[in-house]
Amino acid sequence: MNLIVDVGNTYVKFAVFDDENLIYKLSFKLNGFKMQYEILKKDFPKLKKAIISSVGNLSSEQVTLIRNDFNTVELTSKLNFPFINDYQTPTTLGVDRIALVCASVNQFPNKNVLIIDAGTCITYDFVTKDNHYLGGAISPGLRLRYVSLNNLTANLPLLETKLPHTIVGNSTESSIHSGVVNGVIKEIDGIIDQYLTDYSDLTVILTGGDANFLSNQLKNSIFANSNFLLEGLNFILEYNSK
Amino acid sequence: MNLIVDVGNTYVKFAVFDDENLIYKLSFKLNGFKMQYEILKKDFPKLKKAIISSVGNLSSEQVTLIRNDFNTVELTSKLNFPFINDYQTPTTLGVDRIALVCASVNQFPNKNVLIIDAGTCITYDFVTKDNHYLGGAISPGLRLRYVSLNNLTANLPLLETKLPHTIVGNSTESSIHSGVVNGVIKEIDGIIDQYLTDYSDLTVILTGGDANFLSNQLKNSIFANSNFLLEGLNFILEYNSK
Repeated sequence: MNLIVDVGNTYVKFAVFDDENLIYKLSFKLNGFKMQYEILKKDFPKLKKAIISSVGNLSSEQVTLIRNDFNTVELTSKLNFPFINDYQTPTTLGVDRIALVCASVNQFPNKNVLIIDAGTCITYDFVTKDNHYLGGAISPGLRLRYVSLNNLTANLPLLETKLPHTIVGNSTESSIHSGVVNGVIKEIDGIIDQYLTDYSDLTVILTGGDANFLSNQLKNSIFANSNFLLEGLNFILEYNSK
Repeated sequence: MNLIVDVGNTYVKFAVFDDENLIYKLSFKLNGFKMQYEILKKDFPKLKKAIISSVGNLSSEQVTLIRNDFNTVELTSKLNFPFINDYQTPTTLGVDRIALVCASVNQFPNKNVLIIDAGTCITYDFVTKDNHYLGGAISPGLRLRYVSLNNLTANLPLLETKLPHTIVGNSTESSIHSGVVNGVIKEIDGIIDQYLTDYSDLTVILTGGDANFLSNQLKNSIFANSNFLLEGLNFILEYNSK
């Protein structure tokens, strides 16, 4: 069994894979790390290997704790990956984007794949059918748009994310919901359409925290999979353990 | 001749209309107000009336200065307007959006008009052919998106606005340009398409500081007019002086 440790700015995700099957996942705040880790070890005594993907907030003590218990891989851009990276600045490519590309190459071999990760940011990543990663785009995610309208202007309120009823908002609040949510939906559909004009045999994956919220709103056909990143990390762990 | 004073958060715009023709405009920082005002008065001795549209940063001394020189209208939601306001919260409707709707009703009577103001925020405002203002949407503008990616995330740089070469960015910088600029373009085209499905005889106006930057990138036909707000203010001044 494999342990996946995905550390974001505030939250940590633990995931357990039995072969290629995700059998458990848990999200918690970073300060609960030690307690949750001890519980997890007791619940899954068959864990053998681990991979750590971190934007940098895991302490060296926490990393050592995992290293002492399991065969551990730390995700950096220097590991082995099953794709050719055509990104001009590979060292600045986020490790989460690398993991998404690995999941894509593993699950959709010989396909042109556009991976859309709708989280804090919306990242677009494109892999050709011959395994070339070309790059993509980064735009503000749903919450970031709500927050920026409030933070960076004088008079607009901070709202909870909400699906608008119509395209025409008839109040400040419904105007913001329409602008942010419909704006994101139109952006994603428009970007997919643009790729489709260049690559007609295109597979689109939608993942990230807002994938479920957005997936039914898009006009284009997509695969929604909120575990795509975790599946990519599990693949990288296997790929670098051989 | 009419003087238009449009006061934003940091900048002031003076515009001079001779009848319906814009013959002069100037943008300057608020702290240069008194000097610029005195110069303007000397250059345009035929000025008779004035309208002030302000988000609230003009001092009462500055307002009095104008009031003492000209027949002056201050724009609030309580003036007379040539449209029926179906907005549920009319007092929270920004005066700039009111001015845009007035310009639309004046210049495109008996038309369904979508006005897109691409500035700090992107506002969408819709007026039916029978002069009902229904509302619209508010989303973050180009700069706001660049700034929010830098301000509200851990690792992304702040970039100057730049037209991306392609949809696929192959570096962090070109990925951000693609996500922000192509994202805005796809959002605007997608929103226009949505209105077109409901209102086939639709006129679209694109205005605001980013109108020139964006207008050639859109697939939909639009009228680009960066003076639309000023023209609306001049109309309101005439409409409320009779």
